[in-house]
Amino acid sequence: MKKLRKKVYIAAGFNTVSMGTGRSEFNPKKERPGLEYYIETAGKGTLAQVNDADNIDEGVIGNFMAARFNKQANLPGFIPYIDKKLEWKPAISVEGACGSGGLALVTGLKSVLAETADSVLVLGVEVQNTMKALYGADVLAGAGWYKKRKEGHAFFFPGQFSNRAGAYYEKYGKEYAREGMKRWFVNAMENARLCETAQEYENKAPDLYALYDKFKLNGETFVDNLTVLDCSKVSDGASALIMASEEGLGKLGIDKKDAIEIVGWAQVERNITNEPPNPTEVTTIKKAAHEALESAGITIDELATIETHDCFSIAGILGVEALGFAEPGKGAQFVTDGHTARDGKIPINTTGGLIGWGHPTGATGVHQAVTIWEQLTGKAGPAQIEINPDRPYGMTINMGGDDVTVIAMVYKKAE
Amino acid sequence: MKKLRKKVYIAAGFNTVSMGTGRSEFNPKKERPGLEYYIETAGKGTLAQVNDADNIDEGVIGNFMAARFNKQANLPGFIPYIDKKLEWKPAISVEGACGSGGLALVTGLKSVLAETADSVLVLGVEVQNTMKALYGADVLAGAGWYKKRKEGHAFFFPGQFSNRAGAYYEKYGKEYAREGMKRWFVNAMENARLCETAQEYENKAPDLYALYDKFKLNGETFVDNLTVLDCSKVSDGASALIMASEEGLGKLGIDKKDAIEIVGWAQVERNITNEPPNPTEVTTIKKAAHEALESAGITIDELATIETHDCFSIAGILGVEALGFAEPGKGAQFVTDGHTARDGKIPINTTGGLIGWGHPTGATGVHQAVTIWEQLTGKAGPAQIEINPDRPYGMTINMGGDDVTVIAMVYKKAE
Repeated sequence: MKKLRKKVYIAAGFNTVSMGTGRSEFNPKKERPGLEYYIETAGKGTLAQVNDADNIDEGVIGNFMAARFNKQANLPGFIPYIDKKLEWKPAISVEGACGSGGLALVTGLKSVLAETADSVLVLGVEVQNTMKALYGADVLAGAGWYKKRKEGHAFFFPGQFSNRAGAYYEKYGKEYAREGMKRWFVNAMENARLCETAQEYENKAPDLYALYDKFKLNGETFVDNLTVLDCSKVSDGASALIMASEEGLGKLGIDKKDAIEIVGWAQVERNITNEPPNPTEVTTIKKAAHEALESAGITIDELATIETHDCFSIAGILGVEALGFAEPGKGAQFVTDGHTARDGKIPINTTGGLIGWGHPTGATGVHQAVTIWEQLTGKAGPAQIEINPDRPYGMTINMGGDDVTVIAMVYKKAE
Repeated sequence: MKKLRKKVYIAAGFNTVSMGTGRSEFNPKKERPGLEYYIETAGKGTLAQVNDADNIDEGVIGNFMAARFNKQANLPGFIPYIDKKLEWKPAISVEGACGSGGLALVTGLKSVLAETADSVLVLGVEVQNTMKALYGADVLAGAGWYKKRKEGHAFFFPGQFSNRAGAYYEKYGKEYAREGMKRWFVNAMENARLCETAQEYENKAPDLYALYDKFKLNGETFVDNLTVLDCSKVSDGASALIMASEEGLGKLGIDKKDAIEIVGWAQVERNITNEPPNPTEVTTIKKAAHEALESAGITIDELATIETHDCFSIAGILGVEALGFAEPGKGAQFVTDGHTARDGKIPINTTGGLIGWGHPTGATGVHQAVTIWEQLTGKAGPAQIEINPDRPYGMTINMGGDDVTVIAMVYKKAE
């Protein structure tokens, strides 16, 4: 059922600056505008790239927890706040925890496939810096089965992935695993420094390997098997793009050279009330990635670049294994060897990913697609990688909760 | 863009009991199970009507504020909780305040039109009785622009519609208007008494007119222009149905005589940060209703019955005017004259609507479609109305916030 009945394109991506916790090691403190600012900025930044907002047929917002971070729901009502010309048109908001942005992509895709829209403004947003990180961790615990939260760490999600990291250490060796996680962190920082909207753009640490080593595992002050450098950040941000049919691109005055095409996709859901079937495997990601590749009719060897959901460094490594780049247990080695670096075999998270660019939860899935759009159309600026014409495809993998809600998409430059 | 590119059907509707505040005038206190219970019960009740859950391709949940009422998000993860056979399939959650259920219908519709699914389990749910009503009012204020809530009443939404009622009183006369609102309430109770899942099913008040009159307007204890009997209830409940293509119905073993067809629809969004353009008009409902009728190619004279969003009695009356059954200001008269009663010209809310059946906010839009499905297929039991073959259409109008997010659909019995 995952065959696309018509061509669907992505263009006109825009990211706000991803604002983070402003940890003093890296970042200066910054101002904290509200939810409205981010929606408006990402929306207007996208609409500025089309001839007339009146030619947009629908709007979608992906968001996870504005209800608690901002006490705001009825988010579709902010689509016409972006531009008057979007008023009285359809709008919707979608949720699947940190996979909300990916679900926004799916929703835009379906509107175009359903022919209820020729073009859709697809936006993801999260503004989390409205409370202290520890209280925010309670909010984010709503991405798991909240009833069970007391069985986890106070920092619930770091606790979940700390457990996964612990299982990986035990099975494959701790030193070995942490070498891979260190390199994952270093790649993330190096890539983020090339992207001016990234949270770690201003990270000036002279030796990233030494920085990583400075943070010791300490279960008394944080979770057992991760340090804060293994974690994505508490972020505020929004990303947006246009999804359109061929007719939609024409009406919006978008040249195909500025667009990518969605050539495959998958959406896979795991029962949130169950434990993951295997702590050292991201089973849902594995299924979604393979379904998406099958839907596109390609293999991993044809991928130029991937944006994968590294909410934690261990999730990045498990993702590499789930995709099939390395056997179970060999993912850390694959990363340590530099194969996922920007000049490696398969550049991953070329603008920093969730650890480097930031993780405004509901926006992340959209941000991933914007990055792939930038890379495949040559718009990534200093973060641009070279695209080998024999490997022309890009891929995004967006996850909500502990491998519960997963959306994978495959793209190529529009022809 | 609202033409349906293929036939889409609805079948297998199911409602949980709508549990309310248990106000002692009407209802005994009841047990309060959690969010999981409602999702599971409505989901399983629907799946019991198809041959095999394995033949369901996708799941959608409409929900407004589980994030605050239940601290739970990542709701797509509860689709496979309903039935193991739904695991590893696509699932999504959608939000548009009290219009979330209607957005779930739209999402199912698009999946079928997009041909990414032949059948979709569409579910709406809300469990609000986790806190005192006054704190719940603060949660529900997230359906409006939360930044502005302090300008409203502590009971924010009753306050919004009290303002609308006040404007209507001033323009057309208070006594006159309240006669219509009284009849709206009486119709709601009478219909609810015929539907065993309704919150007011057990309402035994011998004289409903006298009951309404007993509650005096009193701005010191509640809002200025409404009493609690003008308000829908704080409710817990879930509703679900199957949306399917012709192929989907076949695979699920559903006979067409047990299905209705979606023949028209509209989805309209107003800027949440603005005041309504006219306090005595539900402008967004007006636009959506007319677009949906146009999309179906019918007039209001061809409608057998309507489920409209009477979160407050005044919203019901404004809805009658927006639909075009009465000129502005004449809606109260139309209702007082009994035209919207179950034996009137156009029976509205035949199982009690939001005031009588209840208003589990995220479920309401789905519940409305279930009621229309029941009525058009002759499954409404004691609440059944007679369907005149010359007026074979049903309609639902679901609203989120103060006329912000509106979804309208038109249906007829499948052929």
